[in-house]
Amino acid sequence: MVDQASRIAFQGERGAYSEGAAIEFFGEQIEPVACHSFEDVFEAVESGEVDWGMVPIENSLGGSIHRNYDLLVRHQLYIVGEHQFRVRHCLIGLPDVEIADISKVLSHPQALAQTEAYLDRFPGVERVATYDTAGSVKMLKDENMRDAAAVASRRAAEVYGMKVLDENIEDDPENYTRFLALATEPVVPAGPTKTSLVFSLRNEPGALFKALSVFALRDLDLTKIESRPLKGRTWEYLFYLDFVNEGVDNRGELALAHLGEIAPFLRVLGSYPRAGS
Amino acid sequence: MVDQASRIAFQGERGAYSEGAAIEFFGEQIEPVACHSFEDVFEAVESGEVDWGMVPIENSLGGSIHRNYDLLVRHQLYIVGEHQFRVRHCLIGLPDVEIADISKVLSHPQALAQTEAYLDRFPGVERVATYDTAGSVKMLKDENMRDAAAVASRRAAEVYGMKVLDENIEDDPENYTRFLALATEPVVPAGPTKTSLVFSLRNEPGALFKALSVFALRDLDLTKIESRPLKGRTWEYLFYLDFVNEGVDNRGELALAHLGEIAPFLRVLGSYPRAGS
Repeated sequence: MVDQASRIAFQGERGAYSEGAAIEFFGEQIEPVACHSFEDVFEAVESGEVDWGMVPIENSLGGSIHRNYDLLVRHQLYIVGEHQFRVRHCLIGLPDVEIADISKVLSHPQALAQTEAYLDRFPGVERVATYDTAGSVKMLKDENMRDAAAVASRRAAEVYGMKVLDENIEDDPENYTRFLALATEPVVPAGPTKTSLVFSLRNEPGALFKALSVFALRDLDLTKIESRPLKGRTWEYLFYLDFVNEGVDNRGELALAHLGEIAPFLRVLGSYPRAGS
Repeated sequence: MVDQASRIAFQGERGAYSEGAAIEFFGEQIEPVACHSFEDVFEAVESGEVDWGMVPIENSLGGSIHRNYDLLVRHQLYIVGEHQFRVRHCLIGLPDVEIADISKVLSHPQALAQTEAYLDRFPGVERVATYDTAGSVKMLKDENMRDAAAVASRRAAEVYGMKVLDENIEDDPENYTRFLALATEPVVPAGPTKTSLVFSLRNEPGALFKALSVFALRDLDLTKIESRPLKGRTWEYLFYLDFVNEGVDNRGELALAHLGEIAPFLRVLGSYPRAGS
């Protein structure tokens, strides 16, 4: 899919989980480009500064990342691929530091929350919330913090030449994040295709049923449906939906045209090869 | 709904947001009972140690709280009410402390994440993740921490006799959490009723459409639908669904009986008066 020079934007510091997902998906030869925020990732792709972006869209424990759905709606990019990434947290310190030396642990709030039961084993150890998992490892190194460890990926330890003190420390091993690859141009997948969309519906009984009929009547299988109350309009909803077309035909396009007759707002975020197929 | 002696279990320390939601919903006269974990809340209700439990089920920014859906499925309790709670974060310190004295801020990882942009205004200030928002306020007081503040509710400041240094510091004002009231016995609401359920479906095209037909054919309106991949079975799903019956009739029961014919697993979590109605 990508050549030597491909630049992939991700949110976080070098060694972030998003970087790991980008490398698993695109391959080791890419040039990962670290961005401060998700918005920066979208802008880097839109401006052509990078070739692709890689952003998380849902986690098996935390659910959908509404922020990135909002950015997908606001920006003119296409989803061109998806990747299921297994999140494995490590406890990381300076190369000559041991667990017994640690009096505080640094990481992003989400990673601290996902390792809460593990960290409870060390009652005297303070938990310090930072802006980034891999950024915490960088901070340990830059400030030569010998009394602290960070929760981050094994890749982060490698990137900064640090030591893995413990691994697989996430409380729940069923910790998967689904990532999306983003580009300025859509792809036309050859095999089974997943399509992601966002739409709204009028608040009428049966509205969702009518909307879903456009897929059911064409034997298109749904792999995700989620309602989200619209901001400031308590009884109106946005829907996130993914459907799969196993065949190579135009049923997906026909279903989307049909849905367009029903939904006041409809945005197709992209069609792409289904992960694992 | 409740009398003088009613005891309501919630997760967190006194002054937690869940306690605030319980008081808004049940009234000031209740006796709130602080529990260490969500599981403890369920067990306190089940054992009869308390009369009701109050747990968060979804947040407008973070989405559904899968953990509490899992606990609802595992325990034999009923949802007997719902409450929309507006989350307003405060910065809280000892009574004679000023913002300029603060070198670190303590709170639950989620609250630190929701006040990230605000806290960025104080670049030198360290963020310390704790197990609880209100627990952080208690810690400031117990340890007489004059160089620290906590992110928690106004109620937490009142409970512990502390000072509100700043308020409404959440980055996104559209920060609502939906709470559920739980009891050992179901209620039979007199007016418009919301019903919450969890079910699974066989992985067949059109399965969800058939399932939703049981509501659409009876003009029952859906207010929530969400698919969740089942752990360890990548292409199977649980569904969370809420529907509303505006009339006083048995259409809801008929729809559930019909859904029982289609869904391999179905659990009705409770019927209760719709919030705001």
